[in-house]
Amino acid sequence: MNEAEFLAALRTLPLHPAARGLLDDTALLDVGGPLVLTSDTIVEGIHFLPSDPAEDVAWKLGAVNLSDLAAKGALPLGVMLNYTLAGDSAWDAGFIDGLRQLDFNLIGGDTVSLPWGAPRVLTLTAFGTDAAAPPRSGAQAGDALYVTGTIGDAGAGLAIARGAEGPDELLAAYRRPMPRIGDGRALAPLVHAMMDVSDGLLIDGARMAEASGLALEIDLAAVPLSTAYRSFAGDDREARIAAATAGDDYQLLFAAPAGFDLPVPATQIGRFSIGSGLSLMDAAEAVALPARLGFLHTA
Amino acid sequence: MNEAEFLAALRTLPLHPAARGLLDDTALLDVGGPLVLTSDTIVEGIHFLPSDPAEDVAWKLGAVNLSDLAAKGALPLGVMLNYTLAGDSAWDAGFIDGLRQLDFNLIGGDTVSLPWGAPRVLTLTAFGTDAAAPPRSGAQAGDALYVTGTIGDAGAGLAIARGAEGPDELLAAYRRPMPRIGDGRALAPLVHAMMDVSDGLLIDGARMAEASGLALEIDLAAVPLSTAYRSFAGDDREARIAAATAGDDYQLLFAAPAGFDLPVPATQIGRFSIGSGLSLMDAAEAVALPARLGFLHTA
Repeated sequence: MNEAEFLAALRTLPLHPAARGLLDDTALLDVGGPLVLTSDTIVEGIHFLPSDPAEDVAWKLGAVNLSDLAAKGALPLGVMLNYTLAGDSAWDAGFIDGLRQLDFNLIGGDTVSLPWGAPRVLTLTAFGTDAAAPPRSGAQAGDALYVTGTIGDAGAGLAIARGAEGPDELLAAYRRPMPRIGDGRALAPLVHAMMDVSDGLLIDGARMAEASGLALEIDLAAVPLSTAYRSFAGDDREARIAAATAGDDYQLLFAAPAGFDLPVPATQIGRFSIGSGLSLMDAAEAVALPARLGFLHTA
Repeated sequence: MNEAEFLAALRTLPLHPAARGLLDDTALLDVGGPLVLTSDTIVEGIHFLPSDPAEDVAWKLGAVNLSDLAAKGALPLGVMLNYTLAGDSAWDAGFIDGLRQLDFNLIGGDTVSLPWGAPRVLTLTAFGTDAAAPPRSGAQAGDALYVTGTIGDAGAGLAIARGAEGPDELLAAYRRPMPRIGDGRALAPLVHAMMDVSDGLLIDGARMAEASGLALEIDLAAVPLSTAYRSFAGDDREARIAAATAGDDYQLLFAAPAGFDLPVPATQIGRFSIGSGLSLMDAAEAVALPARLGFLHTA
């Protein structure tokens, strides 16, 4: 089974209403108030490189989860850590230092030892409260699609981590993504749908459109690129498609009425309409979809 | 670092009050009402055998977590599953069947793929509500120590799983432990301290005594053994020590006044007093502690 097939099989189990059909990145548990739950597992050699510094791996695992909380507008409450010891004390100490830099509270978890030589498998589960929790599926026909920050920096950073020459700020965007907690808090009560961009702008946009039962058109020319990204990859259509399909951006992607009075800086990059599927423009010109809309973590 | 050293390092991070100093098997989050959280990670080759049927591995991972909820008297609400795909669809389908047999609600989680040949690392996090949540640390001087059910059956079952001849019911005790949810619900509001027996009666009893700042004397002769266990291992001192140090029992161990009016069947097996440390009797005779008080999952 691949991940999608296993997820389909999991959906045959009794699901808690909080799971919302396992269609969202987060679960929403009603216990007195709403509690937002999100969990990510990362595997050495799949989601991070054995050569990545332990501090950065810890930061990224934490940041990825906090980013899911940000997309629900939640206030982070704490995290549980499920950690595998692989017999390298310096790496373990570095990992804890990386967690410390993220400034969240530890609630619990589990620590286990691996057989010799086995890749690390690290799980972090984050809890958040006080969330407006806009769903992924709430976009309405006529809504515009917006994104915070810039897109493609982390993808360029991954290329740099693998040996390409490029500015440190792109490498930092890959290794030290900043969860948009404040932006999420400001946006969540106001928008129709929201999620974070983890696998790529195009694939995540397509997922929001599909969950909402709508068609989505994205304008490549409107996708916000950083100065550093332009200097690294250029600003032509190829560079824009690379940015929009690279993933690991951890920006917030949301649907709201066009001309919406934004509480935080964001860029309008597309529009939802009745129908289905994703289509791509480059200013006035229609562009064929690339074969790969984003990064899929399949081994 | 080993597990204890890593846990000590984790305690230098900011801890949420719900973590209770990371001294308990469960965290207790106050969100409207108290939410009990517990999480276990199991590793192929360490906590389960590659030859163990997938259904049984799933059952055991779920049961181990539900047993932690039982020790807090919690009503199970649902679970999150963090699953690693290892390229064996039949195993994956069997695992889901095992989960289905446990009859709980899935809330969320994550599914990832492993590099080829890597051992499975499986995490399940369980949530429970409406818990009286007696701490591990609440035993009082003069309290008796009680345990539900019988002890040692799963340890004998492990020997049978590894090839020894023995009755199926012992193998079932190892592969299909039954979380004592009903017993925990009945006991939790009434007892001073409670935990489940996961690593071994002696080591878990010693942990309760240490957390409570008390000495504990356990009477081997009083440790309840099943008829199947006696037929497999005998009833002498060696067999009783083996039972009390084997682990995987998932019975409830609790402290309450001697002569306590038990709401469910349980056996009085020891007594807490002022002081520290564990001591062992066999009826009227003092017995030296065995070198190993329980099963420690160190690779």
